[in-house]
Amino acid sequence: VKQRFTHGAMKTGELALIERIRRRVKTSGVKEPELRLGIGDDCAILQPPAGHEVLVTTDFSLEARHFRRDRHPARSVGHRVLARGLSDLAAMGAEPLAAFLSLALPKDVAGDAVWVDGFLDGLLELAEACGVPLAGGDTSESPGDAVLADITLLGSAPIGTSLRRAGARAGDLLYCTGALGGAGAELESLMQKPAQFAEATVQEKHPHLFPQPRLGVGWLLRELGLASACIDMSDGLSTDLAHVCAASEVAAEVEWGKLPVSPLLRRSSPAARERAVLHGGEDYELLFTASADRRVPRRLAGVSLNCIGKIVVKKRGQPKVMLVDADGKRRPLEPAGWEHLR
Amino acid sequence: VKQRFTHGAMKTGELALIERIRRRVKTSGVKEPELRLGIGDDCAILQPPAGHEVLVTTDFSLEARHFRRDRHPARSVGHRVLARGLSDLAAMGAEPLAAFLSLALPKDVAGDAVWVDGFLDGLLELAEACGVPLAGGDTSESPGDAVLADITLLGSAPIGTSLRRAGARAGDLLYCTGALGGAGAELESLMQKPAQFAEATVQEKHPHLFPQPRLGVGWLLRELGLASACIDMSDGLSTDLAHVCAASEVAAEVEWGKLPVSPLLRRSSPAARERAVLHGGEDYELLFTASADRRVPRRLAGVSLNCIGKIVVKKRGQPKVMLVDADGKRRPLEPAGWEHLR
Repeated sequence: VKQRFTHGAMKTGELALIERIRRRVKTSGVKEPELRLGIGDDCAILQPPAGHEVLVTTDFSLEARHFRRDRHPARSVGHRVLARGLSDLAAMGAEPLAAFLSLALPKDVAGDAVWVDGFLDGLLELAEACGVPLAGGDTSESPGDAVLADITLLGSAPIGTSLRRAGARAGDLLYCTGALGGAGAELESLMQKPAQFAEATVQEKHPHLFPQPRLGVGWLLRELGLASACIDMSDGLSTDLAHVCAASEVAAEVEWGKLPVSPLLRRSSPAARERAVLHGGEDYELLFTASADRRVPRRLAGVSLNCIGKIVVKKRGQPKVMLVDADGKRRPLEPAGWEHLR
Repeated sequence: VKQRFTHGAMKTGELALIERIRRRVKTSGVKEPELRLGIGDDCAILQPPAGHEVLVTTDFSLEARHFRRDRHPARSVGHRVLARGLSDLAAMGAEPLAAFLSLALPKDVAGDAVWVDGFLDGLLELAEACGVPLAGGDTSESPGDAVLADITLLGSAPIGTSLRRAGARAGDLLYCTGALGGAGAELESLMQKPAQFAEATVQEKHPHLFPQPRLGVGWLLRELGLASACIDMSDGLSTDLAHVCAASEVAAEVEWGKLPVSPLLRRSSPAARERAVLHGGEDYELLFTASADRRVPRRLAGVSLNCIGKIVVKKRGQPKVMLVDADGKRRPLEPAGWEHLR
């Protein structure tokens, strides 16, 4: 039941994986002055900028729940693990400080250098693009046959300035970044047939496989004091807008005709398009509110901003969110985000 | 393959678990001024004391790898999940700021209120005893039949003062806290027969089921400037001392006759006793070095300190650690910590 390992035996398993990660991190080129001590001691040491508060988020990425190894290329899995956490920092306008990866692999995957390197490629490429060092974590053999990852992200922002879900007021306008429904559309076609995915493919065209956390937009919204409330759309517009309304104790009206529909939904049926835009999560676009007297630019940090509705007073017994159709008909928009994969 | 959930369906699963945790956290009585925003937004917000650096550690606790549900009571599992992380903070002399729990449960366990409450009892009792708030995390359904937990701990210490593995110098004396081998002894008997474990049992007598992280000792060692290097013994004396020697580029001599043997090993064979004391991990005692001209007290924060050997110059081609037997015979002590459970 209990087994001793020799140092040699450990080398081939857990230690070998740690070594592989450490070697890759050393050569990944990310060097941040805030990271005082990285992988290799009992804890990592960070020194956030003076006058900043520290933001923390952790997110599971579990095979068969959040991704499938027969559908998602390893590089996409690594990218998505980190993107989930970075998107939470973006939603609060924070600058990333460091990432921590807990990774448990089944024995056959740990021994598959191509898969492990692909995973690390995806994670470290995004880390480098966003200037966030991988500062530590944990590794283990998975108890089953599923790849298990948990990512912790630390970020910082000047004290008291972080964007929150609470803060939207009746009269505020409602905005979103980028386009909606692309991740849902890509996931649907991915489930129908595995990705014929060339490593060189432009990542921007793959909102599900390679979502782009909106760190630049979030940072500017906070720095410019533009947003009164903000959240990232990981669960879908209907669910995440309900979170903002609940935290802010307000209601909202969304205009269908103003929603920026992803070009990936061009050929979809109206029903599929509506489902992906309103409820399809994992677009990782930002949803935010701003006072009606603030001028919100059409683009920020290279990303389009669209006004999609407004915040109204919450009335007892009334639905939190109403959807206004093109012909002016109003109907309640119930939270109905995707439960990802089963 | 992909399924939508209704809000109602989510209530009974993931949301219900989040609600249960949130309710328990609210009433757990831990209130820390450093925690500006806890569970409920995209990130938690912490404000570390001015002039402090931030320490971060993450640790998996996976069923069948780190614990067994047929052997470990739920309360012990929750306690051990948090203790692992707190012990890493103790090793560096940090004060805990906040904990983040990622928890994935198989469906039948998520529906077992007794197990979930026992787990939360164990985790939150230790959190409260150590003054660390549970500030966030993630929940999911487990993809297999194993309980999966990942704990992230944040702590802080005045800038540049954190204890590290590197820093031991030839001539320093080697110390450990408490007694060694107790966790190994208890694990062995636990594997032979499941714990007849009364909830009211004194926790101090259960070094494996309820290890006590040495936060008070670690904090004082750092505050008093006593330790030149420090590590927690999670993998066992032989393995963790090798880590200190490698990081500090020194060698060490351990005297068998000076090692504080756990009273739980009284009835064990000499071979079992030696194995548990030298290689049995999970005692979570601290191993530290101090300059020979510093007076190290016999007790600190209620825990005994024992001098168990000394640091010497590392010679090329020589083993890192030598064990000196009672009769003066010397032999190499190879790293051979436990691989916990299989």
